[in-house]
Amino acid sequence: MQPSLPNRAIEWREQCLFLLDQRRLPLTVDFLRLKTPQEAFAAIKQMVVRGAPAIGITAAYAVVLSAQQHSVSNMTDSELQSLKTLITADIDYLALARPTAVNLAWALAHMQQIVDGCSAVDATGLCLALEQAAVQMQQADVIANRRMGELGAAYIKKGSAVMTHCNAGALATAGYGTALGVIRAAHAQGKLSCVFANETRPWFQGARLTAWELQQEGITTQLLADSAAASAIQQKAIEWIIVGADRVAANGDVANKIGTYALAVLARYHGKKFMVVAPDSTIDMATSSGADIEIEERAASELTELNGTAFAAPKVAAWNPVFDITPADLVDVLVTNRGVIEAPNQAKIEALMA
Amino acid sequence: MQPSLPNRAIEWREQCLFLLDQRRLPLTVDFLRLKTPQEAFAAIKQMVVRGAPAIGITAAYAVVLSAQQHSVSNMTDSELQSLKTLITADIDYLALARPTAVNLAWALAHMQQIVDGCSAVDATGLCLALEQAAVQMQQADVIANRRMGELGAAYIKKGSAVMTHCNAGALATAGYGTALGVIRAAHAQGKLSCVFANETRPWFQGARLTAWELQQEGITTQLLADSAAASAIQQKAIEWIIVGADRVAANGDVANKIGTYALAVLARYHGKKFMVVAPDSTIDMATSSGADIEIEERAASELTELNGTAFAAPKVAAWNPVFDITPADLVDVLVTNRGVIEAPNQAKIEALMA
Repeated sequence: MQPSLPNRAIEWREQCLFLLDQRRLPLTVDFLRLKTPQEAFAAIKQMVVRGAPAIGITAAYAVVLSAQQHSVSNMTDSELQSLKTLITADIDYLALARPTAVNLAWALAHMQQIVDGCSAVDATGLCLALEQAAVQMQQADVIANRRMGELGAAYIKKGSAVMTHCNAGALATAGYGTALGVIRAAHAQGKLSCVFANETRPWFQGARLTAWELQQEGITTQLLADSAAASAIQQKAIEWIIVGADRVAANGDVANKIGTYALAVLARYHGKKFMVVAPDSTIDMATSSGADIEIEERAASELTELNGTAFAAPKVAAWNPVFDITPADLVDVLVTNRGVIEAPNQAKIEALMA
Repeated sequence: MQPSLPNRAIEWREQCLFLLDQRRLPLTVDFLRLKTPQEAFAAIKQMVVRGAPAIGITAAYAVVLSAQQHSVSNMTDSELQSLKTLITADIDYLALARPTAVNLAWALAHMQQIVDGCSAVDATGLCLALEQAAVQMQQADVIANRRMGELGAAYIKKGSAVMTHCNAGALATAGYGTALGVIRAAHAQGKLSCVFANETRPWFQGARLTAWELQQEGITTQLLADSAAASAIQQKAIEWIIVGADRVAANGDVANKIGTYALAVLARYHGKKFMVVAPDSTIDMATSSGADIEIEERAASELTELNGTAFAAPKVAAWNPVFDITPADLVDVLVTNRGVIEAPNQAKIEALMA
């Protein structure tokens, strides 16, 4: 029997963080138990967990792990102050795990506010406050995803095929998913004929994660090479390309998995619609445009090896940016938990976020 | 020491066809020795050999193998006639090995003409005539490639970066290459700053073959995911996207490796130039437009496994067209051994092929 998707990719229990190891999916379902912020940092960097909202939630729990790690009982006031300083140092460190998804910085900023504002008189109280904040963040993400699912699905006509890229599903979030949330909701409404899932090199999130999630929902899926997307958009009854986001700038430019920008150009060229689904935690009003977003470049080995086995020309140089920027004017609809923006621009996003 | 590229991927010696097994490159350099047309059929179908011109040349030698297989000494006139019938049956069979590259049909039609027109009075004479024709075809392909290399390189400005897709190099032809022939010639003229080689899923011709060929020429190369091509076209100093072709229709539409069409759209969108390099054996005046070209769809396993190891969601359905059609109006320059056509269309191609 093939492994099935666990209820959640991120679980907090026994004062530990359990992460589904997404590097090994779908053939192996295995949870890693993390006890320290250092382990959480490594898990984010090495992509045990990935997906902007999931990275943010993981970082929030990592701050709880930090508080636990540095706590001792019966702290003096000055020791409690030192504890807060140590947690702040860990927050600064965790922020460096990956650069592009703003949810990491957003979640850490939220946790820093809890640290700074916490009136607890002992370490236990601080740990509890941080734990509550992380749990609430995780719960709120599922609610946001379900809301976005309903809002986005309203745009899908009955009988449509859609295309998605990378994995913006339950695995990338606290549950349900952003782009896949819209797809789940549209499927529940009986609207979808087929989902075209781009395999999403180099990490194969489409082949490994999205196809797996869709299978378990019983949604008709066709996996395809990223380079076949143009033919599919041209020839198949695809109405919408639906993607998540790692960061939405104040002007509506969207950072998302490498390949997203090409899909947006191809959608426009073929008269198809392009939808971005992202919670407000992904919208970064401090970044004015896509040009200011750091695009992570990862190791050449992601392009030259698979599961540790090399297949490419030995020692070839590789350029491996793992995100790209889709300019706002190629986005037809931005779906957020605060509401939907058609043809997003700075003024509309400012109004939404006010 | 890493293996180096043999002089030729296709060798005829000892009355046998030796094919470099391109499925195992670049990590293993191994030649298969073929003695029968059945073995040649399997080699084409299973992609031991690939690339439109190389497939055509392989098929031509397969006809020699057919003639040898069915020959006996001291044939009567009617036995010689039967031999020709058997060869014709093999030609019809070989034509089914792969559908998209017209060079296969072109080479077989040429060999059929030799069979039909051969005035030899014995099997030895017929075999010799076919062998000469195949050897000439192989030699002519190298000459055509060198000519196209010069013609295409004339369009490249000094200091340019270029992008190529799939492998249209020595391995895809009798030697030198079509798109890579232009790149080799431009490199020899000191014009190239860098070649961006798309990895070319699902078969990784770019990562395995093109990067390897370019390495051995000492040409600065950057391997990238197919989905990163749009970012490279947008951000890097890429002047030309240069590709080969599997079939050029009479109106100038181009069938080539899946992903080519997206590159042509992206080139136009970003004001970059798109060059197709193909010998006249790839131009099919009997096919009026791209809509009439059969696009081969290959097994889902090419998208779900690598080297026999599955990595994708088990049993996911996959759509795996391995070619696409680029409409003529997205082609800036068509380079052939008969000359160059800018902004190709039916009238210009008819004049070229007249």
